[in-house]
Amino acid sequence: MEADPGRSRRGVLRGAVTGALGVGLVVAAGTSGPAFAAVRGEEGGAGADGLRVAVLLYDGFTALDAVGPYEVLCRVPGVRVTMVARERGPVRTDTGELALVAECAMRDVRRADVLLVPGGGERGVVAMMEDTAVHEWIRRIHRDSVWTTSVCTGSLILGAAGLLRGLPATTYWASRPYLKELGAIYTPGRFVEAGKIITAAGVSAGIDMGLRLAARLSDEDVARAMQLAVEYDPDPPYDTGSPEKADEATEALALKLIADAARWPTP
Amino acid sequence: MEADPGRSRRGVLRGAVTGALGVGLVVAAGTSGPAFAAVRGEEGGAGADGLRVAVLLYDGFTALDAVGPYEVLCRVPGVRVTMVARERGPVRTDTGELALVAECAMRDVRRADVLLVPGGGERGVVAMMEDTAVHEWIRRIHRDSVWTTSVCTGSLILGAAGLLRGLPATTYWASRPYLKELGAIYTPGRFVEAGKIITAAGVSAGIDMGLRLAARLSDEDVARAMQLAVEYDPDPPYDTGSPEKADEATEALALKLIADAARWPTP
Repeated sequence: MEADPGRSRRGVLRGAVTGALGVGLVVAAGTSGPAFAAVRGEEGGAGADGLRVAVLLYDGFTALDAVGPYEVLCRVPGVRVTMVARERGPVRTDTGELALVAECAMRDVRRADVLLVPGGGERGVVAMMEDTAVHEWIRRIHRDSVWTTSVCTGSLILGAAGLLRGLPATTYWASRPYLKELGAIYTPGRFVEAGKIITAAGVSAGIDMGLRLAARLSDEDVARAMQLAVEYDPDPPYDTGSPEKADEATEALALKLIADAARWPTP
Repeated sequence: MEADPGRSRRGVLRGAVTGALGVGLVVAAGTSGPAFAAVRGEEGGAGADGLRVAVLLYDGFTALDAVGPYEVLCRVPGVRVTMVARERGPVRTDTGELALVAECAMRDVRRADVLLVPGGGERGVVAMMEDTAVHEWIRRIHRDSVWTTSVCTGSLILGAAGLLRGLPATTYWASRPYLKELGAIYTPGRFVEAGKIITAAGVSAGIDMGLRLAARLSDEDVARAMQLAVEYDPDPPYDTGSPEKADEATEALALKLIADAARWPTP
Protein backbone atom coordinates (compact mmCIF):
# COMPACT_ATOMS: atom_id res chain seq x y z
CA MET A 1 0.00 0.00 0.00
CA GLU A 2 1.18 3.48 -0.84
CA ALA A 3 1.16 6.28 1.70
CA ASP A 4 -0.66 9.39 0.51
CA PRO A 5 2.26 11.60 -0.56
CA GLY A 6 0.35 14.72 0.42
CA ARG A 7 -0.22 13.59 3.95
CA SER A 8 3.23 12.10 4.16
CA ARG A 9 4.90 15.30 3.01
CA ARG A 10 2.88 17.41 5.39
CA GLY A 11 3.42 15.12 8.35
CA VAL A 12 0.96 14.19 11.06
CA LEU A 13 3.55 15.27 13.59
CA ARG A 14 4.06 18.94 12.96
CA GLY A 15 7.57 19.45 11.66
CA ALA A 16 8.49 15.82 11.92
CA VAL A 17 9.24 15.10 8.31
CA THR A 18 11.58 17.95 7.56
CA GLY A 19 14.16 16.72 10.01
CA ALA A 20 13.57 13.03 9.59
CA LEU A 21 16.78 12.29 7.78
CA GLY A 22 19.06 13.99 10.27
CA VAL A 23 19.70 10.85 12.24
CA GLY A 24 22.73 12.28 13.99
CA LEU A 25 25.34 9.91 15.29
CA VAL A 26 23.50 6.67 14.79
CA VAL A 27 25.03 4.88 11.88
CA ALA A 28 22.47 2.22 11.09
CA ALA A 29 18.83 1.36 11.59
CA GLY A 30 18.05 -0.51 14.76
CA THR A 31 19.16 -3.93 13.70
CA SER A 32 21.57 -6.29 15.32
CA GLY A 33 24.21 -5.26 12.80
CA PRO A 34 26.69 -2.41 12.81
CA ALA A 35 24.62 -0.15 15.07
CA PHE A 36 25.40 -2.41 17.98
CA ALA A 37 29.08 -2.94 17.31
CA ALA A 38 29.89 -0.09 19.66
CA VAL A 39 27.77 -1.53 22.43
CA ARG A 40 29.74 -4.72 22.06
CA GLY A 41 32.75 -2.67 23.10
CA GLU A 42 34.81 -3.15 19.98
CA GLU A 43 35.37 0.55 19.53
CA GLY A 44 36.71 1.61 22.90
CA GLY A 45 35.10 4.41 24.90
CA ALA A 46 32.31 6.81 24.06
CA GLY A 47 32.98 9.55 21.59
CA ALA A 48 32.06 10.00 17.98
CA ASP A 49 29.88 6.95 18.15
CA GLY A 50 27.77 8.40 20.92
CA LEU A 51 26.64 7.21 24.32
CA ARG A 52 25.39 3.68 24.80
CA VAL A 53 22.68 2.80 27.32
CA ALA A 54 22.49 -0.94 28.07
CA VAL A 55 19.22 -2.10 29.64
CA LEU A 56 19.54 -5.54 31.24
CA LEU A 57 16.49 -7.70 30.52
CA TYR A 58 15.89 -11.00 32.30
CA ASP A 59 13.07 -13.49 32.58
CA GLY A 60 10.48 -11.89 34.85
CA PHE A 61 11.50 -8.22 34.51
CA THR A 62 8.84 -5.49 34.69
CA ALA A 63 8.21 -3.95 31.28
CA LEU A 64 7.60 -0.34 32.32
CA ASP A 65 10.82 -0.29 34.39
CA ALA A 66 12.72 -0.73 31.13
CA VAL A 67 10.45 1.10 28.68
CA GLY A 68 9.94 4.28 30.76
CA PRO A 69 13.64 5.26 30.73
CA TYR A 70 14.06 3.93 27.17
CA GLU A 71 11.33 6.25 25.91
CA VAL A 72 12.90 9.30 27.56
CA LEU A 73 16.51 8.49 26.58
CA CYS A 74 16.17 7.08 23.07
CA ARG A 75 15.78 10.50 21.47
CA VAL A 76 18.54 12.27 23.39
CA PRO A 77 21.11 13.30 20.75
CA GLY A 78 23.92 10.79 20.44
CA VAL A 79 22.33 8.28 22.81
CA ARG A 80 21.53 4.75 21.75
CA VAL A 81 19.54 2.40 23.96
CA THR A 82 20.10 -1.35 23.63
CA MET A 83 18.29 -4.18 25.37
CA VAL A 84 20.76 -6.80 26.61
CA ALA A 85 20.04 -10.24 28.08
CA ARG A 86 21.76 -13.57 28.73
CA GLU A 87 20.93 -14.49 25.15
CA ARG A 88 19.61 -12.45 22.23
CA GLY A 89 15.91 -12.78 21.51
CA PRO A 90 12.58 -12.41 23.31
CA VAL A 91 12.61 -11.99 27.09
CA ARG A 92 9.35 -12.43 28.95
CA THR A 93 8.07 -10.03 31.62
CA ASP A 94 6.88 -10.81 35.15
CA THR A 95 3.27 -11.33 34.04
CA GLY A 96 4.23 -13.62 31.16
CA GLU A 97 1.92 -11.69 28.85
CA LEU A 98 4.57 -9.62 27.08
CA ALA A 99 8.06 -10.13 25.68
CA LEU A 100 10.65 -7.55 24.65
CA VAL A 101 13.47 -8.47 22.32
CA ALA A 102 17.06 -8.32 23.58
CA GLU A 103 19.29 -7.17 20.74
CA CYS A 104 22.56 -8.23 22.36
CA ALA A 105 23.79 -11.06 24.56
CA MET A 106 25.56 -10.04 27.77
CA ARG A 107 28.80 -11.73 26.70
CA ASP A 108 28.96 -9.44 23.67
CA VAL A 109 28.60 -6.25 25.71
CA ARG A 110 31.82 -5.26 27.42
CA ARG A 111 31.22 -1.55 27.88
CA ALA A 112 28.28 0.80 28.20
CA ASP A 113 28.13 4.42 29.21
CA VAL A 114 24.92 3.82 31.14
CA LEU A 115 23.82 0.53 32.69
CA LEU A 116 20.15 0.32 33.62
CA VAL A 117 18.82 -2.63 35.62
CA PRO A 118 15.01 -2.82 35.73
CA GLY A 119 13.13 -4.47 38.56
CA GLY A 120 10.93 -7.48 38.23
CA GLY A 121 8.62 -9.87 39.98
CA GLU A 122 9.60 -12.05 42.90
CA ARG A 123 10.77 -14.99 40.81
CA GLY A 124 12.86 -12.98 38.35
CA VAL A 125 14.51 -10.73 40.93
CA VAL A 126 15.40 -13.57 43.30
CA ALA A 127 16.99 -15.47 40.41
CA MET A 128 19.06 -12.42 39.46
CA MET A 129 20.08 -11.83 43.07
CA GLU A 130 21.56 -15.35 43.08
CA ASP A 131 23.18 -15.25 39.65
CA THR A 132 26.91 -14.70 40.16
CA ALA A 133 27.62 -14.60 36.41
CA VAL A 134 25.21 -11.68 36.07
CA HIS A 135 26.83 -9.98 39.07
CA GLU A 136 30.26 -10.29 37.42
CA TRP A 137 28.88 -8.74 34.24
CA ILE A 138 27.24 -5.91 36.18
CA ARG A 139 30.49 -5.18 38.02
CA ARG A 140 32.46 -5.20 34.78
CA ILE A 141 30.10 -2.75 33.08
CA HIS A 142 29.94 -0.62 36.25
CA ARG A 143 33.74 -0.31 36.38
CA ASP A 144 33.79 1.80 33.21
CA SER A 145 30.27 3.23 33.17
CA VAL A 146 29.45 6.90 33.43
CA TRP A 147 26.20 6.06 35.21
CA THR A 148 24.99 2.82 36.75
CA THR A 149 21.27 2.90 37.39
CA SER A 150 18.29 0.83 38.47
CA VAL A 151 14.53 1.08 38.59
CA CYS A 152 12.34 -0.54 41.25
CA THR A 153 13.72 -3.85 42.58
CA GLY A 154 16.59 -3.53 40.11
CA SER A 155 18.44 -1.92 43.02
CA LEU A 156 18.29 -5.24 44.88
CA ILE A 157 20.18 -6.78 41.96
CA LEU A 158 22.78 -3.98 42.04
CA GLY A 159 22.99 -4.55 45.79
CA ALA A 160 23.45 -8.31 45.40
CA ALA A 161 26.28 -7.54 42.98
CA GLY A 162 27.93 -5.59 45.80
CA LEU A 163 27.53 -2.13 44.33
CA LEU A 164 25.47 -0.44 47.05
CA ARG A 165 27.45 -1.12 50.25
CA GLY A 166 27.31 1.95 52.47
CA LEU A 167 25.47 3.98 49.85
CA PRO A 168 22.12 5.78 49.97
CA ALA A 169 19.64 4.11 47.61
CA THR A 170 15.97 3.53 46.95
CA THR A 171 13.87 0.69 45.56
CA TYR A 172 10.28 -0.49 45.18
CA TRP A 173 8.19 0.60 48.18
CA ALA A 174 7.42 -2.99 49.22
CA SER A 175 11.10 -3.97 49.08
CA ARG A 176 12.67 -1.17 51.11
CA PRO A 177 13.66 -3.46 54.05
CA TYR A 178 15.85 -5.56 51.75
CA LEU A 179 18.18 -2.70 50.88
CA LYS A 180 19.58 -2.79 54.43
CA GLU A 181 20.39 -6.48 54.14
CA LEU A 182 22.43 -5.64 51.05
CA GLY A 183 24.40 -2.99 52.93
CA ALA A 184 22.65 0.04 51.43
CA ILE A 185 21.01 2.91 53.30
CA TYR A 186 17.36 3.27 52.27
CA THR A 187 16.78 6.90 51.39
CA PRO A 188 13.38 8.29 50.39
CA GLY A 189 13.14 9.85 46.96
CA ARG A 190 11.73 9.35 43.48
CA PHE A 191 15.35 8.57 42.63
CA VAL A 192 18.52 8.73 44.72
CA GLU A 193 21.97 9.69 43.44
CA ALA A 194 25.13 8.32 45.07
CA GLY A 195 28.20 9.16 43.02
CA LYS A 196 27.64 7.61 39.64
CA ILE A 197 24.91 5.27 40.89
CA ILE A 198 21.28 6.34 40.57
CA THR A 199 18.51 4.14 41.96
CA ALA A 200 14.87 4.93 41.18
CA ALA A 201 11.78 4.00 43.18
CA GLY A 202 9.16 1.64 41.75
CA VAL A 203 8.22 1.03 38.11
CA SER A 204 7.00 4.44 36.84
CA ALA A 205 9.80 6.27 38.74
CA GLY A 206 12.09 5.25 35.89
CA ILE A 207 10.48 7.98 33.78
CA ASP A 208 11.46 10.68 36.29
CA MET A 209 14.98 9.24 36.62
CA GLY A 210 15.21 9.04 32.83
CA LEU A 211 14.59 12.77 32.56
CA ARG A 212 17.40 13.49 35.05
CA LEU A 213 19.68 11.15 33.09
CA ALA A 214 18.72 12.91 29.87
CA ALA A 215 19.91 16.18 31.42
CA ARG A 216 23.17 14.60 32.58
CA LEU A 217 23.87 12.92 29.23
CA SER A 218 22.96 16.07 27.28
CA ASP A 219 21.62 19.21 28.93
CA GLU A 220 18.51 20.51 30.67
CA ASP A 221 17.05 21.97 27.48
CA VAL A 222 17.07 18.50 25.94
CA ALA A 223 15.60 16.96 29.10
CA ARG A 224 12.78 19.54 29.13
CA ALA A 225 12.14 18.84 25.45
CA MET A 226 12.01 15.11 26.13
CA GLN A 227 9.43 15.67 28.87
CA LEU A 228 7.29 17.42 26.27
CA ALA A 229 8.11 14.79 23.62
CA VAL A 230 6.54 12.09 25.83
CA GLU A 231 3.84 14.57 26.98
CA TYR A 232 4.71 13.79 30.57
CA ASP A 233 2.21 16.04 32.30
CA PRO A 234 0.91 13.44 34.74
CA ASP A 235 -2.63 13.66 36.05
CA PRO A 236 -3.53 10.34 37.66
CA PRO A 237 -7.21 9.99 38.61
CA TYR A 238 -6.20 8.98 42.17
CA ASP A 239 -3.46 9.90 44.63
CA THR A 240 -2.32 6.51 45.87
CA GLY A 241 1.08 6.28 44.20
CA SER A 242 3.15 5.71 47.34
CA PRO A 243 2.55 3.88 50.63
CA GLU A 244 2.71 7.26 52.38
CA LYS A 245 -0.39 8.30 50.40
CA ALA A 246 -2.29 5.01 50.16
CA ASP A 247 -4.14 3.37 53.04
CA GLU A 248 -3.38 -0.09 54.37
CA ALA A 249 -6.19 -1.77 52.46
CA THR A 250 -4.87 -0.36 49.18
CA GLU A 251 -1.39 -1.57 50.09
CA ALA A 252 -2.61 -5.07 50.88
CA LEU A 253 -4.65 -5.21 47.68
CA ALA A 254 -1.67 -4.03 45.60
CA LEU A 255 0.52 -6.80 46.99
CA LYS A 256 -2.23 -9.37 46.37
CA LEU A 257 -2.73 -8.25 42.76
CA ILE A 258 1.02 -8.40 42.11
CA ALA A 259 1.23 -11.90 43.54
CA ASP A 260 -1.86 -13.11 41.69
CA ALA A 261 -0.53 -11.86 38.37
CA ALA A 262 2.88 -13.51 38.72
CA ARG A 263 3.08 -16.10 36.00
CA TRP A 264 5.28 -19.13 36.27
CA PRO A 265 6.95 -20.36 33.14
CA THR A 266 5.73 -23.54 31.52
CA PRO A 267 8.53 -26.13 31.39
CA MET B 1 21.62 -22.15 39.75
CA GLU B 2 19.49 -22.64 42.82
CA ALA B 3 17.57 -19.82 44.40
CA ASP B 4 18.27 -19.41 48.11
CA PRO B 5 15.21 -21.11 49.65
CA GLY B 6 15.34 -18.78 52.65
CA ARG B 7 15.20 -15.67 50.54
CA SER B 8 12.75 -17.21 48.15
CA ARG B 9 10.38 -18.27 50.91
CA ARG B 10 10.59 -14.88 52.54
CA GLY B 11 10.09 -12.97 49.32
CA VAL B 12 11.76 -9.75 48.27
CA LEU B 13 8.34 -8.30 47.61
CA ARG B 14 6.61 -8.29 50.95
CA GLY B 15 3.76 -10.79 50.85
CA ALA B 16 4.29 -11.65 47.24
CA VAL B 17 5.07 -15.33 47.58
CA THR B 18 2.12 -16.37 49.68
CA GLY B 19 -0.37 -15.47 46.98
CA ALA B 20 1.73 -16.31 43.98
CA LEU B 21 -0.16 -19.43 43.01
CA GLY B 22 -3.58 -17.80 43.00
CA VAL B 23 -3.48 -16.94 39.33
CA GLY B 24 -7.17 -16.30 39.13
CA LEU B 25 -8.86 -16.69 35.81
CA VAL B 26 -5.84 -17.06 33.63
CA VAL B 27 -5.55 -20.65 32.56
CA ALA B 28 -2.03 -20.84 31.19
CA ALA B 29 1.33 -19.12 31.32
CA GLY B 30 1.81 -16.34 28.84
CA THR B 31 2.51 -18.41 25.80
CA SER B 32 0.85 -18.39 22.44
CA GLY B 33 -1.09 -21.47 23.49
CA PRO B 34 -4.40 -21.86 25.30
CA ALA B 35 -4.18 -18.54 27.15
CA PHE B 36 -4.83 -16.73 23.90
CA ALA B 37 -7.59 -18.91 22.56
CA ALA B 38 -10.13 -16.53 24.02
CA VAL B 39 -8.54 -13.53 22.40
CA ARG B 40 -8.87 -15.30 19.11
CA GLY B 41 -12.60 -15.14 19.69
CA GLU B 42 -13.31 -18.83 19.72
CA GLU B 43 -15.16 -18.67 23.00
CA GLY B 44 -17.71 -15.97 22.40
CA GLY B 45 -18.06 -13.00 24.75
CA ALA B 46 -16.36 -12.18 28.01
CA GLY B 47 -17.30 -14.13 31.08
CA ALA B 48 -15.59 -16.88 33.00
CA ASP B 49 -12.57 -16.51 30.80
CA GLY B 50 -12.14 -12.88 31.79
CA LEU B 51 -11.69 -9.64 29.90
CA ARG B 52 -9.33 -9.44 26.97
CA VAL B 53 -7.37 -6.29 26.11
CA ALA B 54 -5.93 -6.32 22.59
CA VAL B 55 -3.10 -3.85 21.97
CA LEU B 56 -2.47 -3.26 18.27
CA LEU B 57 1.25 -3.13 17.49
CA TYR B 58 2.58 -1.98 14.11
CA ASP B 59 5.93 -1.13 12.64
CA GLY B 60 6.88 2.28 14.06
CA PHE B 61 4.61 2.33 17.14
CA THR B 62 5.77 4.12 20.30
CA ALA B 63 6.72 1.65 23.03
CA LEU B 64 5.49 3.57 26.08
CA ASP B 65 2.06 4.14 24.46
CA ALA B 66 1.55 0.37 24.63
CA VAL B 67 3.51 -0.52 27.76
CA GLY B 68 2.06 2.19 30.04
CA PRO B 69 -1.52 0.89 29.83
CA TYR B 70 -0.30 -2.74 29.73
CA GLU B 71 1.51 -2.29 33.04
CA VAL B 72 -1.56 -0.81 34.73
CA LEU B 73 -4.07 -3.30 33.27
CA CYS B 74 -2.17 -6.60 33.30
CA ARG B 75 -2.73 -7.16 37.03
CA VAL B 76 -6.40 -6.18 37.14
CA PRO B 77 -8.27 -9.34 38.19
CA GLY B 78 -9.59 -11.28 35.22
CA VAL B 79 -7.93 -9.04 32.64
CA ARG B 80 -5.49 -10.41 30.10
CA VAL B 81 -3.49 -8.10 27.83
CA THR B 82 -2.38 -9.40 24.44
CA MET B 83 -0.18 -7.71 21.86
CA VAL B 84 -1.63 -8.14 18.36
CA ALA B 85 -0.08 -7.26 15.00
CA ARG B 86 -0.42 -8.06 11.32
CA GLU B 87 1.74 -11.12 11.95
CA ARG B 88 2.92 -12.75 15.16
CA GLY B 89 6.48 -11.99 16.20
CA PRO B 90 8.68 -8.98 16.91
CA VAL B 91 7.37 -5.52 15.98
CA ARG B 92 9.81 -2.65 15.92
CA THR B 93 9.17 0.75 17.53
CA ASP B 94 9.48 4.22 16.00
CA THR B 95 13.15 4.57 16.97
CA GLY B 96 14.08 1.15 15.62
CA GLU B 97 15.99 0.40 18.81
CA LEU B 98 13.40 -1.81 20.48
CA ALA B 99 10.98 -4.56 19.48
CA LEU B 100 8.00 -5.98 21.35
CA VAL B 101 6.62 -9.37 20.49
CA ALA B 102 3.08 -9.67 19.13
CA GLU B 103 1.52 -12.87 20.46
CA CYS B 104 -1.37 -12.95 18.00
CA ALA B 105 -1.95 -12.09 14.36
CA MET B 106 -4.84 -9.70 13.64
CA ARG B 107 -6.64 -12.30 11.53
CA ASP B 108 -6.81 -14.60 14.57
CA VAL B 109 -8.38 -11.97 16.82
CA ARG B 110 -12.09 -11.55 16.17
CA ARG B 111 -13.17 -10.11 19.49
CA ALA B 112 -11.68 -8.17 22.36
CA ASP B 113 -13.31 -6.45 25.31
CA VAL B 114 -10.85 -3.57 25.06
CA LEU B 115 -9.04 -2.43 21.94
CA LEU B 116 -6.05 -0.17 22.50
CA VAL B 117 -4.31 1.54 19.58
CA PRO B 118 -0.97 3.13 20.51
CA GLY B 119 0.49 6.06 18.64
CA GLY B 120 3.71 6.02 16.70
CA GLY B 121 6.17 8.01 14.67
CA GLU B 122 5.32 9.78 11.44
CA ARG B 123 6.11 6.84 9.18
CA GLY B 124 4.21 4.24 11.20
CA VAL B 125 1.12 6.34 11.83
CA VAL B 126 0.79 7.51 8.23
CA ALA B 127 1.02 3.89 7.05
CA MET B 128 -1.71 2.86 9.48
CA MET B 129 -3.91 5.80 8.47
CA GLU B 130 -3.78 4.48 4.90
CA ASP B 131 -4.20 0.79 5.67
CA THR B 132 -7.79 -0.13 4.90
CA ALA B 133 -7.34 -3.75 6.04
CA VAL B 134 -6.33 -2.48 9.46
CA HIS B 135 -9.30 -0.09 9.47
CA GLU B 136 -11.66 -3.00 8.76
CA TRP B 137 -10.15 -4.99 11.61
CA ILE B 138 -10.44 -2.02 13.97
CA ARG B 139 -14.11 -1.52 13.02
CA ARG B 140 -14.84 -5.21 13.53
CA ILE B 141 -13.26 -5.27 17.00
CA HIS B 142 -14.92 -1.95 17.87
CA ARG B 143 -18.36 -3.28 16.97
CA ASP B 144 -18.34 -5.70 19.93
CA SER B 145 -15.85 -4.03 22.25
CA VAL B 146 -16.69 -2.70 25.68
CA TRP B 147 -14.06 0.02 25.29
CA THR B 148 -12.16 1.20 22.24
CA THR B 149 -9.16 3.28 23.19
CA SER B 150 -6.08 5.02 21.86
CA VAL B 151 -2.96 6.68 23.16
CA CYS B 152 -1.20 9.60 21.46
CA THR B 153 -1.46 9.55 17.64
CA GLY B 154 -3.34 6.26 17.92
CA SER B 155 -6.46 8.45 17.81
CA LEU B 156 -5.54 9.49 14.26
CA ILE B 157 -5.70 5.80 13.33
CA LEU B 158 -9.08 5.41 15.03
CA GLY B 159 -10.15 8.55 13.17
CA ALA B 160 -8.92 7.24 9.82
CA ALA B 161 -10.97 4.10 10.49
CA GLY B 162 -14.01 6.37 10.79
CA LEU B 163 -14.62 5.93 14.49
CA LEU B 164 -14.33 9.54 15.68
CA ARG B 165 -16.72 11.45 13.39
CA GLY B 166 -18.47 14.13 15.42
CA LEU B 167 -16.93 12.95 18.68
CA PRO B 168 -14.78 14.77 21.23
CA ALA B 169 -11.27 13.30 21.28
CA THR B 170 -7.66 14.08 22.08
CA THR B 171 -4.29 13.10 20.64
CA TYR B 172 -0.59 13.95 20.78
CA TRP B 173 -0.09 17.68 21.36
CA ALA B 174 1.69 18.17 18.03
CA SER B 175 -1.06 16.38 16.11
CA ARG B 176 -4.14 18.16 17.45
CA PRO B 177 -4.95 19.90 14.12
CA TYR B 178 -5.33 16.54 12.38
CA LEU B 179 -8.23 15.42 14.52
CA LYS B 180 -10.45 17.99 12.84
CA GLU B 181 -9.58 16.65 9.38
CA LEU B 182 -10.79 13.26 10.59
CA GLY B 183 -14.12 14.69 11.73
CA ALA B 184 -13.37 14.68 15.46
CA ILE B 185 -13.64 17.59 17.87
CA TYR B 186 -10.34 18.21 19.61
CA THR B 187 -11.02 18.41 23.33
CA PRO B 188 -8.34 19.17 25.93
CA GLY B 189 -7.73 16.51 28.56
CA ARG B 190 -5.29 13.89 29.72
CA PHE B 191 -7.86 11.51 28.24
CA VAL B 192 -11.28 12.15 26.72
CA GLU B 193 -14.28 9.82 26.99
CA ALA B 194 -16.97 9.71 24.26
CA GLY B 195 -19.33 6.83 24.80
CA LYS B 196 -17.24 3.70 24.74
CA ILE B 197 -14.31 5.44 23.04
CA ILE B 198 -11.50 6.84 25.19
CA THR B 199 -8.63 8.73 23.57
CA ALA B 200 -5.56 9.65 25.62
CA ALA B 201 -3.11 12.47 25.03
CA GLY B 202 0.54 11.78 24.18
CA VAL B 203 2.67 8.77 25.17
CA SER B 204 2.74 8.83 29.00
CA ALA B 205 -0.97 9.79 29.15
CA GLY B 206 -1.71 6.11 28.53
CA ILE B 207 -0.79 5.44 32.16
CA ASP B 208 -3.47 7.84 33.41
CA MET B 209 -6.03 6.43 30.99
CA GLY B 210 -5.02 2.91 32.03
CA LEU B 211 -5.91 3.70 35.64
CA ARG B 212 -9.35 4.93 34.59
CA LEU B 213 -9.84 1.79 32.50
CA ALA B 214 -8.74 -0.35 35.45
CA ALA B 215 -11.54 1.24 37.48
CA ARG B 216 -14.07 0.65 34.70
CA LEU B 217 -13.03 -2.98 34.15
CA SER B 218 -12.92 -3.69 37.88
CA ASP B 219 -13.51 -1.04 40.53
CA GLU B 220 -11.84 2.03 42.02
CA ASP B 221 -10.21 0.06 44.85
CA VAL B 222 -8.39 -2.03 42.26
CA ALA B 223 -7.42 1.06 40.26
CA ARG B 224 -6.03 2.75 43.38
CA ALA B 225 -4.10 -0.43 44.20
CA MET B 226 -2.69 -0.55 40.67
CA GLN B 227 -1.51 3.06 41.00
CA LEU B 228 0.43 1.96 44.09
CA ALA B 229 1.56 -1.27 42.39
CA VAL B 230 3.34 0.77 39.71
CA GLU B 231 4.35 3.39 42.32
CA TYR B 232 2.85 6.11 40.15
CA ASP B 233 3.60 9.11 42.31
CA PRO B 234 5.04 11.26 39.55
CA ASP B 235 7.63 13.90 40.36
CA PRO B 236 9.28 15.01 37.11
CA PRO B 237 12.32 17.25 37.55
CA TYR B 238 10.78 19.80 35.15
CA ASP B 239 7.32 21.10 34.31
CA THR B 240 7.31 21.07 30.53
CA GLY B 241 4.96 18.16 29.89
CA SER B 242 2.47 20.01 27.69
CA PRO B 243 2.75 22.81 25.14
CA GLU B 244 0.74 25.01 27.52
CA LYS B 245 3.60 24.69 30.03
CA ALA B 246 6.62 24.55 27.73
CA ASP B 247 8.03 27.53 25.85
CA GLU B 248 8.37 27.72 22.07
CA ALA B 249 12.05 26.78 22.05
CA THR B 250 11.30 23.61 24.03
CA GLU B 251 8.51 22.79 21.62
CA ALA B 252 10.74 23.26 18.58
CA LEU B 253 13.51 21.18 20.16
CA ALA B 254 11.08 18.37 21.04
CA LEU B 255 9.88 18.17 17.44
CA LYS B 256 13.46 18.19 16.17
CA LEU B 257 14.53 15.39 18.55
CA ILE B 258 11.53 13.27 17.53
CA ALA B 259 12.32 13.75 13.86
CA ASP B 260 16.04 13.10 14.33
CA ALA B 261 15.37 9.84 16.15
CA ALA B 262 12.98 8.47 13.55
CA ARG B 263 14.63 5.39 12.12
CA TRP B 264 13.88 4.11 8.68
CA PRO B 265 13.88 0.39 8.15
CA THR B 266 16.70 -1.22 6.26
CA PRO B 267 15.36 -2.98 3.16
